[in-house]
Amino acid sequence: MTDPTQVQFFSYDDADALHPVPGIEMRAVFGAGASVNLVDLASGAELPLHSHPHEQIGVVLEGVLVLIVGGREHRLGVNEACVVPGGVEHGGRGGPEGCRVLDVFIPGREDYRSAAAPPRVPPSSPTS
Amino acid sequence: MTDPTQVQFFSYDDADALHPVPGIEMRAVFGAGASVNLVDLASGAELPLHSHPHEQIGVVLEGVLVLIVGGREHRLGVNEACVVPGGVEHGGRGGPEGCRVLDVFIPGREDYRSAAAPPRVPPSSPTS
Repeated sequence: MTDPTQVQFFSYDDADALHPVPGIEMRAVFGAGASVNLVDLASGAELPLHSHPHEQIGVVLEGVLVLIVGGREHRLGVNEACVVPGGVEHGGRGGPEGCRVLDVFIPGREDYRSAAAPPRVPPSSPTS
Repeated sequence: MTDPTQVQFFSYDDADALHPVPGIEMRAVFGAGASVNLVDLASGAELPLHSHPHEQIGVVLEGVLVLIVGGREHRLGVNEACVVPGGVEHGGRGGPEGCRVLDVFIPGREDYRSAAAPPRVPPSSPTS
């Protein structure tokens, strides 16, 4: 568990990946008020329609994400983002080359805590 | 202004960049509970020590970020992240090749609203 009053460092590469469905893996970093999940979707891998009370802000870092919301499919490419308010049903699918997405959840997704990166001590040096 | 009850799409490429200091530019996406800022730091460009009441979760996407916090410099590479609680003084500098960072602020940084991407209508198609 992290201490919300302390500066914390993490590496996604240190986190155990969670696979909510085949072809999708996620790793998480938790702050006090949000979690930031790095999510990789293989080509065609699909997260079925679902909803949660958390607000979600997704940013596509690589590839194309097909976001399904409001009865329509939306193709989001690199540097494109979507804000899904809490309680709104949505799903997602990896585009032809798959995709990598950073999903911010407010508040943090405690149900994904098992995918949380452990705090680490990064290389550092005194500033003086 | 965005409607926090509605799904919203954005492109960082549509946002006007804000330059808080030379060599640093940022673009923002706002949800109801957070803003997600895409920040590019040129090599050596430095954001001086500062603090704000917002919690900040930064994730390095490209290059190396030198984060200054607690009297030490920390070199963060790709897929590394830092959680800075509200009120904690910190600063940053672009590494030798510069860097790109996604900074999540909880709550959203209203003082960076001028860097907000406008909502957009993405290409979409009915799912049925």
